[in-house]
This record gives sequence, structure tokens and C-alpha cells, in this order.
Amino acid sequence: MSVTAAAGFEAGGLASGIKASGAADLAMVATDDRRPVPAAGVFTSNLVAAAPVLVSREHLEDGRASAVVLNSGNANAATGAAGRADARRMCDLTAEALGCASADVLVCQTGLIGIPMPMAPVEVGIPELGAALAGDAARAAAAADAILTTDTVRKETRRPLDLAGSSAVIGGMAKGAAMLSPAMATMLAVLTTDAAIEPDALRVAVADAVDRSFNALSVDGCCSTNDTVLVLASGRAGTAQIAAGTPAAAQFASVLGDACRDLARQMAADAEGATKLVRLEVRGAGSVRDARVAARGVANSQLVQCSLYGNDPYWGRVLSELGASGARFDPERVSIAYQGVEVCRDGVAAPHDRDALAASMARREIEIVCDLRAGDAEAEILFTDLTHAYVDENMGTS
Amino acid sequence: MSVTAAAGFEAGGLASGIKASGAADLAMVATDDRRPVPAAGVFTSNLVAAAPVLVSREHLEDGRASAVVLNSGNANAATGAAGRADARRMCDLTAEALGCASADVLVCQTGLIGIPMPMAPVEVGIPELGAALAGDAARAAAAADAILTTDTVRKETRRPLDLAGSSAVIGGMAKGAAMLSPAMATMLAVLTTDAAIEPDALRVAVADAVDRSFNALSVDGCCSTNDTVLVLASGRAGTAQIAAGTPAAAQFASVLGDACRDLARQMAADAEGATKLVRLEVRGAGSVRDARVAARGVANSQLVQCSLYGNDPYWGRVLSELGASGARFDPERVSIAYQGVEVCRDGVAAPHDRDALAASMARREIEIVCDLRAGDAEAEILFTDLTHAYVDENMGTS
Repeated sequence: MSVTAAAGFEAGGLASGIKASGAADLAMVATDDRRPVPAAGVFTSNLVAAAPVLVSREHLEDGRASAVVLNSGNANAATGAAGRADARRMCDLTAEALGCASADVLVCQTGLIGIPMPMAPVEVGIPELGAALAGDAARAAAAADAILTTDTVRKETRRPLDLAGSSAVIGGMAKGAAMLSPAMATMLAVLTTDAAIEPDALRVAVADAVDRSFNALSVDGCCSTNDTVLVLASGRAGTAQIAAGTPAAAQFASVLGDACRDLARQMAADAEGATKLVRLEVRGAGSVRDARVAARGVANSQLVQCSLYGNDPYWGRVLSELGASGARFDPERVSIAYQGVEVCRDGVAAPHDRDALAASMARREIEIVCDLRAGDAEAEILFTDLTHAYVDENMGTS
Repeated sequence: MSVTAAAGFEAGGLASGIKASGAADLAMVATDDRRPVPAAGVFTSNLVAAAPVLVSREHLEDGRASAVVLNSGNANAATGAAGRADARRMCDLTAEALGCASADVLVCQTGLIGIPMPMAPVEVGIPELGAALAGDAARAAAAADAILTTDTVRKETRRPLDLAGSSAVIGGMAKGAAMLSPAMATMLAVLTTDAAIEPDALRVAVADAVDRSFNALSVDGCCSTNDTVLVLASGRAGTAQIAAGTPAAAQFASVLGDACRDLARQMAADAEGATKLVRLEVRGAGSVRDARVAARGVANSQLVQCSLYGNDPYWGRVLSELGASGARFDPERVSIAYQGVEVCRDGVAAPHDRDALAASMARREIEIVCDLRAGDAEAEILFTDLTHAYVDENMGTS
């Protein structure tokens, strides 16, 4: 299970003392022989990138890595040159503990922004953790636990990968509810595979997988300073090397996407304060861009989110947000359905059984389908409702 | 005071029965001689424009109008061809009641989206109201009251205008907290002046004034289907005709902007569920566009809004939203101040008196200044916090 499901990886987690609560806050994932393997990542597009993002980007330039060190309890963001030195020091400590090169260590951090990273706990914790890594499921779970912030449950995934008769696996762990549980504001994911894959093919696959998973998970519109998705490929399964642009590469990307979608779905289901998990589909758009901006416009709407909290199928707000999104369509051709019940047709109210719909709106899982009837493009997004508990969680954290 | 402060205008308002509560819901503003005068408007940019927006746009094509009829209680949006016929019928009824041309009547509607306009109340109410218009302050107040939805107070303004020795006045009324109190989702404003102004000059002035007032008022990112700002100019003050591109036109636009800002401020102060009125200034931006997107990015952030509700000067979120906004700057040159206290300097935490700042964060009026140190451009935006009461107000309205 999880980040050690693929052959060739070890992991671990412990409480180093970064978190005043004494909860686990330090995790590590490494190749079992400490040698660097093909690795790729996707990082936040925020101009204000945290120190670990800057350092990991640099360490990934050669497309290889031996280990990832992660901490919760502090984001090491908006911490300037001192923060970058701290992130580098974490790589140095990890390299020393594992016997690999510091430039082959990636670093992920999550927590509050703007507070200097407390280094004393990791000066002790990293050597201790590095000496205790193993490939069993319990260590993987310990690592997955140590990266949680306001999450209420551990998030792990595992997907088999059959490549021309030989089999491999993709496993992974994640934290955060992306921008859904944004008190801590960050999503982190580390995936591993024992498939053999060229660095270029891996880079394309992770970008594609993130686009179809974490990037289709909404969102209060916020993009963290620390968001990071990393994939390491040990090649230990003995499968043929996957080259860029081949059918095998497409197959790998597809399964990696499934693994990421599984993690994204776990994040949405664990979103802070949410009472609804909403799947919104925009179809019939004139272009993929239109479908995406329309879906995002609706998903990011505080009004739509509040309506859903109130079990209210107020399609007028959905239509208004579609109209404000920038997507092009004829408002009088649009149809909108909640839970499979068409409530708007040709841009006006459609007769429907209100009592039956009211009953199904009380469910936790909600589906909204908007058909723009302007083309063939479609997009899907997962989001949650805006609740009293969300306000509670986010009204004071610094 | 208000929409009849300028010479040559009458107004009135009554309860026609659109609102089940029996509250006032029908208003009218007209020239006292029912003749058309120069008029201009700014309408929602939402692709899904309500029927009254479509009809008013058409009736304003000649740059002249005699009257405006307004109702609350129903937005007549997403109501298709029947809705457009209803909006036209309201103009016809008004024209008949006042003895002017239907094409010289403008119409504004606000309320829930997607519900057919109940016409029976206005069939009776419009003739009744048209027969009872007058130029006194009480009728102006009645008009201002009749357009309110979830507003708790009437919103009126009056500004003197001195033009080369002769004097005129700009008055107006508004409803809604723009996108701030979006249960009803709409802002409407009608302004009148007795200055004499060419239609072209009036058009430029109103666009400019709206840009510097209502468009700098945030926002949960939502843009209503019905937003409308109208200005009618009677010319009755006896001032010289204001031509486009002259200093007098600039002066008129400036005072009109002041009047609109006054109304926008009243909207923000009355925003549903809000406990804070926040003025955010972004300065030192590389361009006006950058300053605006940065300001809007921060103002629209649910995270920033929740922090403010909790009296929390969590500048890390502000910095993160600046970084996610698309504006270009060096994160390590940014400074951020809450209530005049610099909490972030050069992109990292700045030492400050936390107790003193905590005390001033408890105030209702909050000021945040972000200096990007990337240029000379600046922008300002007014917004409010995200509260339990906001969620309450918006969780069920249909």
C-alpha cells in the first residue's frame, strides 16, 4: 500500500517537535539503495513560491532524485534567504543520514506562511528518521500521517500497471485538501513507481496526470505557495524502459492520472468543514478552455457553494456564474441538471418534481451537469460547499 | 436629497404586491415634463443578461430617456422571450401612465433569478405610481426604499457641481451591496443631474465614474445578471452645455464619480453579514492592470476574508494571493501593512507590536496596504469579510 507499494522504496515518519501538539510532523521517502532514480514534479504556479519549492525545482533539474524529506507544521514560505538556507539544510541533513547527494534530495513543507522554520527539531529528527526507514506498509502509513495538517484522515493510493505482460505498480501519499482546506493552504503528493521510465516520459506523464486530477479539484480560487506533486521511478519491476511518446508512456500517464485522481478525491472528501462533495460537469462547450473556465467559475462561486450547503438547487446562480466566466455560449440554449433532474432548459426554469429533488439534494454527494449546447468540449471539477465550519476553520490561524 | 435633488425630476415608490412580504417593491423616476433628456448607462458584463438589461440597452441606443421604472422582488432573469415581453410591457405601462414614449422608458429589476415575473401587481401598480410622482424628498426616499432587497438601509447621495460660476447638482439612489450581498446578486443605481450635458459626454462620464466606484467595490467575484447604473441629465440648472472632451466634462465625470463612490461605500457598509469594511490599496505595481488584478485577487480570497472575520492580520495569505493573482513583482520586495502597521517587509515577517495591532484589528474599518515595489501604479478596492452570517444569508434563497 501507498508510497512503498512499488519495489525499491522505503519510507518513515515521526514527531520531531515542529508541531507544538506533539503530532507526527516529519516524513521521508527514499530509494532503498539511496541511488538516484528518474524523478519529476509539478509545483505551484504562485509567483510567491516557498523555499522548498525553489530548492526542489533546482534539485530536479537533472530529472533524478534519491529521496524526499517532508515536514508539516511550518510552510517555510515568505521566509527569504534564511528560509532557502533552511530548506537546503534539510536536504543536507537528509543526504548525510542516507548517504546520498544533497542535490538528489527533494524537500516539501506545509503549514503556516511567514514564520521562520524551527530547525532544532529537524536537526535531531532527520538523522533519527533516516536511520529507521523501511519498505513496509506501517512505515508508509507513518510517512503519510506525518505530512497531514488539518486533514482528518491519511491519504494513500495504489494502482497496478500492466505493461506488455510484465507488471509494475504506482503508489503514493498526499496531504491537504488542496485549496479546499486552505487553512494550511497546501497540497503535497509523493508518488512512486517501480516501472522503468525515461525522465522525459516521466515529466510529461506527471504534468498530464496533475492536469486531470489535482487541477480539476477545486478550490476557493487559492493557489498555495507550497503545492507540490513528485513522482520517483525506481525501475525495479523489471519492465521495459518506457520512452516518451510511446503507447506505454500514454498508458503509464493514464494510470498515474488514476492514482492522482484517487488522492484528489480523498482530499475533497476530507475537505475542512465541507458537508458536500460536488462533481460538476460542463459539456457542450465550444472549446476545452471554455469548458474549464465555465466549470471553475461555478465551482469557485461562494454563492453556489452556499446554496449547496443549504441543499438548494438554485440553478439561477449557476447560470449567472456560467455567464460571468468568460465562456461563450447562447444563454437560451443552456440546460442545467442537479442530481440528474433537469431544472433549467433552454435557459429558463424547467418543470420538475421539487420534492423528489429536495430529497436527493440532502445527500452528501451532489452532481451538477451544465450543457452549454455550443460545441463538443467538456470539463469536470470536484468541489465542496461553503459552510459555517469552513469559516470557523479559517477565521484565525496565525 | 437623492434622485430628485436635481431640478426637473420626480420620483415615487409603493408596494405593488410583487414581494409576498408586502414591502415596497415598485419605483419610478421621471423627468417632470415627461420629455426625454440625455441619458446613459452601464450594464452587467455577464453574458447571461436579464431581460430588463436587454430592453434598457436597446432603449438607450438614442442616448435619451424620460423615465426609469424599477422593481425589487423578481430579477426577471433567465426568463426567456416571455421575460423580455414582460420587461417591455413594464415600459409600455409606464409610458402610458406618464404620457411619454415606451422607447424612452428604461427598466431595472432585482430579485431571484429564473422565476417568471408576476405581472398582475405591476399592471395595477405602475398606473397608480405614475399618477403620484413628485419632486419632494419623501417621494425620492420612497423610490429608494422600493428598490431594496436584502439591504438594511436606504442608499441616497447628493453632490453639488459648480460649473464656471453656475451651479448644478448630481443626486442618486442605489440598492444592493453589489456582489457583496449577493443573495439577490444585483446592484442598481439611478442618478440624475440638472447639468446640461451632451449624450456623448454623459456616456463617457458614467463609464469613468462606474470604473472608479462600483467596479472598485468587491466582490465575491460574482457579476450579477442585472447590474445597472443609469444617469439622466435634465439640463434644468441653466448651466452651459457640457461637451465631450472638455474640462467641464472631466469635472462632471469627477463629481459623478464621487456620487457613485458615496453610493458604493454605503453598499459596502450595508453588506450582508459583514462585520468588517476593508479598504485595500495595492501600490508600487508595474502597471494599473497589475495593481487591479492584485487588489482583486486579495479582495476575492475566501481565506483573506475569513482571516479578517477572525481579526487575524495573517499577511501570509495576502502575500500568497498577490502571488497567485498574475501580477508581476519580486516577492522579496513586497511590504504589507494592516492598520498602518507594517507586518511584512521585503517579503518576510516584520517585527511589530502584536498587542497594539490586535487591538486595532478589532475595529470595523480595516485598511490593508500592499506595496509591490515594482513600479508606480496603484489601485484600491473595498471589500468585506466572510462571516457565519454571510453563509446564513446565502445558503437558501430559492
